[in-house]
Amino acid sequence: MFSPEELNGYFEGLKRDFPIFSHDPSLVYLDSAATTQKPSSVLAAIRDFYERNNSNVHRGVYPLAEAATELYESSRRRLSGFVGCRPCELVFTKGSTEGLNVLASSLSICGDYDTFIVPVFEHHSNFVPWQYHARKNGLRFIPLPISQNSLDMSLVKETLQRMNGRFVFSLAGLVNSTGYRPPFEEIGSLVHLAGGIMVLDGAQLIPHEKFSFSESNVDFLVFSGHKMLSETGIGCLVGREKLLGELNPFVFGGQMIDLVGKEETIFSEGVAKLEGGTQNISGAVSMLAAVEYLENAGMERISTHVSNLTSRAREKIRAIGGYIIHSPESSRAVITFTHSRVHSHDIAEFLGRKMNIALRSGHHCSQLQMKELGIISACRASFYLYNTFEDVDRLANSLEEAGRWFDEFR
Amino acid sequence: MFSPEELNGYFEGLKRDFPIFSHDPSLVYLDSAATTQKPSSVLAAIRDFYERNNSNVHRGVYPLAEAATELYESSRRRLSGFVGCRPCELVFTKGSTEGLNVLASSLSICGDYDTFIVPVFEHHSNFVPWQYHARKNGLRFIPLPISQNSLDMSLVKETLQRMNGRFVFSLAGLVNSTGYRPPFEEIGSLVHLAGGIMVLDGAQLIPHEKFSFSESNVDFLVFSGHKMLSETGIGCLVGREKLLGELNPFVFGGQMIDLVGKEETIFSEGVAKLEGGTQNISGAVSMLAAVEYLENAGMERISTHVSNLTSRAREKIRAIGGYIIHSPESSRAVITFTHSRVHSHDIAEFLGRKMNIALRSGHHCSQLQMKELGIISACRASFYLYNTFEDVDRLANSLEEAGRWFDEFR
Repeated sequence: MFSPEELNGYFEGLKRDFPIFSHDPSLVYLDSAATTQKPSSVLAAIRDFYERNNSNVHRGVYPLAEAATELYESSRRRLSGFVGCRPCELVFTKGSTEGLNVLASSLSICGDYDTFIVPVFEHHSNFVPWQYHARKNGLRFIPLPISQNSLDMSLVKETLQRMNGRFVFSLAGLVNSTGYRPPFEEIGSLVHLAGGIMVLDGAQLIPHEKFSFSESNVDFLVFSGHKMLSETGIGCLVGREKLLGELNPFVFGGQMIDLVGKEETIFSEGVAKLEGGTQNISGAVSMLAAVEYLENAGMERISTHVSNLTSRAREKIRAIGGYIIHSPESSRAVITFTHSRVHSHDIAEFLGRKMNIALRSGHHCSQLQMKELGIISACRASFYLYNTFEDVDRLANSLEEAGRWFDEFR
Repeated sequence: MFSPEELNGYFEGLKRDFPIFSHDPSLVYLDSAATTQKPSSVLAAIRDFYERNNSNVHRGVYPLAEAATELYESSRRRLSGFVGCRPCELVFTKGSTEGLNVLASSLSICGDYDTFIVPVFEHHSNFVPWQYHARKNGLRFIPLPISQNSLDMSLVKETLQRMNGRFVFSLAGLVNSTGYRPPFEEIGSLVHLAGGIMVLDGAQLIPHEKFSFSESNVDFLVFSGHKMLSETGIGCLVGREKLLGELNPFVFGGQMIDLVGKEETIFSEGVAKLEGGTQNISGAVSMLAAVEYLENAGMERISTHVSNLTSRAREKIRAIGGYIIHSPESSRAVITFTHSRVHSHDIAEFLGRKMNIALRSGHHCSQLQMKELGIISACRASFYLYNTFEDVDRLANSLEEAGRWFDEFR
């Protein structure tokens, strides 16, 4: 076991692997919930792919095409190991949002479900697709109320008891706007008891926590590459083999086709059915390198360090005065706050321009969560493995200075 | 005006910009219709983006987020200039296939159209989405017959005369399986006369030919980054502003949302409505660099050189004997052929393994075109600016050797 300080020292060392901080040494990047920075090993993997192995996959018989296909499929295998599923259960997508859209669109027309349940703290990407497709296809859509920033488990149980077994419950593993980590293991088990299926939006969870799909009560999982050190434009949809096999294709064309007739087409089986068109091959290669980096760094160490950073930020911000924290006490990787008198955009802009601290202000694609908190926008600082205690301290000091600076304006 | 030899010399020089050929100097890459190689300026742009400007776009107020947004929007502007549309008419997609799926899915439910017409030589990506969505939503689907490898213009006219003005005609600018360039300008004008709208699959055309959307008879255009020197996982959908504004969103979530209520959501206007979720930002940046490279090289010079390569290949392959050419006499950038006694996979494998010549064999995602030609698969050599006369000559010599080699086996 490392002490928090030892762990901080370890990650201070790893920070050197991220070239953006060499180019801009004063940068404090606290927006990893939006997108993460990339280590040089990931950038080298992308470059290497294009310089040495670039070709389209699956369709060529020459050595270059075979090398590209092998890299692409290695990435599928390595990612499957990372999230504890089988390679035949992992489909490459453009990102979490596309994965959720594939699910909402397909599950709304397959005839097996009549209700979609989604808590109102979800990211719009895990709310609007379910709302839209339920409405379009005459399913019931239940926007599950929340208490402030958390789920009320008695309400969850009550809602599930009223279900008839033909429902989908879609839930974030870690809520992007507040860092709340719902008890998804318990909810998954309740969902299964009630005969429904469970979708986990892992966009924020998978970068931060060791997760095993096969040991979980989750039926479908989505996550994004760019939130875990990889490129933009790539992500994964994981599903139980049988359920995945029953999904309707979302994008038609390319390798997802088996036989085309003038009147009708027969689609491929398995993951290929859901990978229409040329895939983001370099994106998949970048995810392979990212998972290697994360596993070398140690997922448990990352979880612990990020928790340490979050707690430290919570304590320091609380101590300043004038700021209201909207994240729950147990929030992970994210701390969301407002100032009692200054707009969050002004705070973020002050930090960005004067202090070179990058954090986000806005509704964090979660307008209903903001409404529940009684605010329109908030500042969000989100942490990842390249952040250090020094970053947190600079954040806290700058927030204090921002408070003073705007007070003097009055 | 350059002579063919001078032009060849010019592109021989540019070939040095493509690192894959330094790493593997004997490689003859003749599969650019599947995906293209990347110049070092594009790879540097990707790396630079991640090392200096990486951030999510549109939602941040700190300098890094503004720089990323500015790069992303610069790419939109530069690409708009490249294809002659306005920036408000250009949407980033995952690639041509996604663009065509957005169109087929949306145009089949909007109520304005009752018929989709698609020639049977189209790539599956421009055939199956129209077939599927027409069938699903009760529209008529017309798989337009072809004569061998070309459109019969009298049949096109006849078909259009029977239309009632509520139809979509979707057509490749350059057919991937044969290099046939249909007279899409004339067809576009006939489509408009008959009151329909025209979709152009520009995946193969845009890399090879200067095109102006605003001066064309095309209402929607799609193309892919990876077929024009950029990354995989990025492409564009271009549409007339009014028609684009009427499209239904395809992927729900993220910035495509204006206001979310528990029961209903109001979507953004304009291109944002069609860019749900975090976009492939580095992909867009790579397209910006690619267009700069292509424009510096000169689109007219590229067209002419690639035509010279294609003609040279046609003559040389014809001279060998034993090979049947399936591309029309006027084919562009692509030459498709079979051997009268040897399977195309065997030819491609011989060339790949023994000669380090990368070309494709198969149905080229165009099974109905193959059927029309009376074959199941064919070899396809496709050319781009980094190919030279030497590549063509090595192809021809190797094809001759392959013929002899397999003959000795008998």
